[in-house]
Amino acid sequence: MKNLKGACIFGQSGGPTSVINSSAAGVFTEALKQPNITAVYGAAHGIKGILEETFYDISQESPEELMLLKNTPSSALGSVRYKLKPVEEDETDYKRILEVFKKYNIRYFFYNGGNDSMDTCNKVSKYLLSKGYECNIIGVPKTIDNDLYGTDHCPGYGSAAKYVATTLMELCLDATVYDKGQITIVEIMGRNAGWLTAASSLAYYKGLGPDLIYLPEIPFDIDKFVDDVKNVIDQNNGKCIVALSEGIKTKEGLYVAEAIEQRKAEKDSFGHTQLGGVADALADLLKQRFKTKVRAIEFSLLQRCAAHLASKTDVEEAFMAGVMAVRYAVQGETDKMVVFERQPQKEYKIEYKLMPVELAANAEKKVPLEWIINNGTALSDKFIEYALPLIQGDTKAPLEEGLPRMAKLKKVLVRK
Amino acid sequence: MKNLKGACIFGQSGGPTSVINSSAAGVFTEALKQPNITAVYGAAHGIKGILEETFYDISQESPEELMLLKNTPSSALGSVRYKLKPVEEDETDYKRILEVFKKYNIRYFFYNGGNDSMDTCNKVSKYLLSKGYECNIIGVPKTIDNDLYGTDHCPGYGSAAKYVATTLMELCLDATVYDKGQITIVEIMGRNAGWLTAASSLAYYKGLGPDLIYLPEIPFDIDKFVDDVKNVIDQNNGKCIVALSEGIKTKEGLYVAEAIEQRKAEKDSFGHTQLGGVADALADLLKQRFKTKVRAIEFSLLQRCAAHLASKTDVEEAFMAGVMAVRYAVQGETDKMVVFERQPQKEYKIEYKLMPVELAANAEKKVPLEWIINNGTALSDKFIEYALPLIQGDTKAPLEEGLPRMAKLKKVLVRK
Repeated sequence: MKNLKGACIFGQSGGPTSVINSSAAGVFTEALKQPNITAVYGAAHGIKGILEETFYDISQESPEELMLLKNTPSSALGSVRYKLKPVEEDETDYKRILEVFKKYNIRYFFYNGGNDSMDTCNKVSKYLLSKGYECNIIGVPKTIDNDLYGTDHCPGYGSAAKYVATTLMELCLDATVYDKGQITIVEIMGRNAGWLTAASSLAYYKGLGPDLIYLPEIPFDIDKFVDDVKNVIDQNNGKCIVALSEGIKTKEGLYVAEAIEQRKAEKDSFGHTQLGGVADALADLLKQRFKTKVRAIEFSLLQRCAAHLASKTDVEEAFMAGVMAVRYAVQGETDKMVVFERQPQKEYKIEYKLMPVELAANAEKKVPLEWIINNGTALSDKFIEYALPLIQGDTKAPLEEGLPRMAKLKKVLVRK
Repeated sequence: MKNLKGACIFGQSGGPTSVINSSAAGVFTEALKQPNITAVYGAAHGIKGILEETFYDISQESPEELMLLKNTPSSALGSVRYKLKPVEEDETDYKRILEVFKKYNIRYFFYNGGNDSMDTCNKVSKYLLSKGYECNIIGVPKTIDNDLYGTDHCPGYGSAAKYVATTLMELCLDATVYDKGQITIVEIMGRNAGWLTAASSLAYYKGLGPDLIYLPEIPFDIDKFVDDVKNVIDQNNGKCIVALSEGIKTKEGLYVAEAIEQRKAEKDSFGHTQLGGVADALADLLKQRFKTKVRAIEFSLLQRCAAHLASKTDVEEAFMAGVMAVRYAVQGETDKMVVFERQPQKEYKIEYKLMPVELAANAEKKVPLEWIINNGTALSDKFIEYALPLIQGDTKAPLEEGLPRMAKLKKVLVRK
């Protein structure tokens, strides 16, 4: 592909993570340095900001504020859940994108998100190519779910994993403090892939983790679960700590909360089922079976935006993913996603490579079944080896009066 | 009172905090230095460990491990919820305590807890005095609720407040990331006193806080609440973030979840109503009224054990509260609680004083009504001035492989 001269635009899509803004910092600081990039725009609310021509002039931001993005969670430009229809079905959005790109001479498009966002990159790329409009498009991966195909791991995962492991260690100390039984069920995000729930085994590895861990990779048997809990409390003075994924399903394919509560779940705008409540549902069930206190805890949004507990490795890799997206694009690469390739040497090291973006679009990488041991209730050392390097190092926003100083962008709108 | 020679025993009682073990570190390190203290014991599960004669020989612990207690949350010795019956009603426990204290020549008793624990100190103190057994008893305050009478604030509060403020700042960035409406209701601990919920105003002070804050000090009007939310979403693109206390009640004295769900709450062993679920109940109600996404988040146990986000001020004050309890006791003080007195100068400084423990027993200090403004939905600058110094400074456990290295006590049992 060509080494193009023109403006670049960057957008953030999908659910927040602690480090999505670190990738933004990487893209922006690198793009501002590149002589072939004539303007740097940030799209408000991802693809929606492009369609509505609402974007910010990043050259107006101070370098210091852009660097504060590295430790500011969520999406500073605003995010979106918007799935482009297939072009054969409806060309409207595609025409509009081409129109906007032409108007501002946008020749570089960077999109930060999960598999749905990579699908957007791929569709836009193919459309622009079909119209003969030259634009280099690079996807920057992001998801706490860690389920993107083709990359060793995803930016966002390491920080969420560090949150899950650290918080579970603290919770284990709290939930076992009394001299009587207590069952604690912690519900962790992850729709179809159990990577984040598996991170609770890092706490177990440190001697303060859950007794039982359930991932969505293995069909969940409610009766077996009750037996598993009974075995733990019988051996453990009535105490049991469980970590489980929001996405666990019965072998019939029903979400466990659905299976228990027989209630219909709402749908969100990508057509996924709206999850949540499985810990509550199972806690109610255990209360009926055992005469003991049962507490359900949902990590909820906290696990994906806890930048105060970010992994430095994750923050720096997310930043570099943004930097490398820009470097590859100006070298002429397009329709690709930045991927992390773990190097074979003993000391942890990754290299930033590229992969065709369509391979990531709508594919899901799951936890290998052979890593799930103890009859579906624990993770093997292979997982610890995999995940431990990803949570290393501490970093967070500078403190002002004891509280984080988040990035405050000026967000100067580009005149239409 | 006399300067006594004999053993000391320390116990932990009530719900965990991030810094209860820091007070333990203070008591232990100071007691081990005192020539008049002949042995240092830690009671397993508070008063229960004394009654059952289950306690640990603290001289067997390494000084390094004792210092790691400063950043290890929850209660390393185990905690308990056990309320002594009035002596007129049942003398059994008191006789047993006297017997155990005599057997081990225990002349110093330090008890770390909230108002129920101070009640225990007071009852044991009066009983031993009536039997002519000399023992100096000092209470060490502890509660994230900050509701103990007679002290400027309580150890445990500053760290929980820092957690609430920091986490709300992160949540505010997360919960407003999409270009569409979303109501987020965060439920915060605090039974009858709103101190911890009020800490959410520190996030607001930093520009990233909840739009509406409800404390239990003000009767909660469900219809007014719906109107308050409507006003915010009308002005704010459909977005609203609410922080409220688990303990809010209607003017009829019903907990809001009870009032809404008309369901009977369980009682816990102190006779308090088992709380929780108010955010869920209000979220359900708002979903019915407004066509928008509503999410309920409970900080649950996380807010009281998040030692990774502790306030250094709080950790150091908790430590010194333990140290001062020992120093006062060896000077002959008894039947008192350590209190914090804020000094009048501009720069924040406290002095460690004593107060008769009976003044703290079963009393509750609430947020002054004049600090609650905006028709019961916000806190005045007076609160910010009060709370901001308490969340200053960072401290946490050293990291090993990216995760906290918690204290691991040997817990060598004293032979019966």
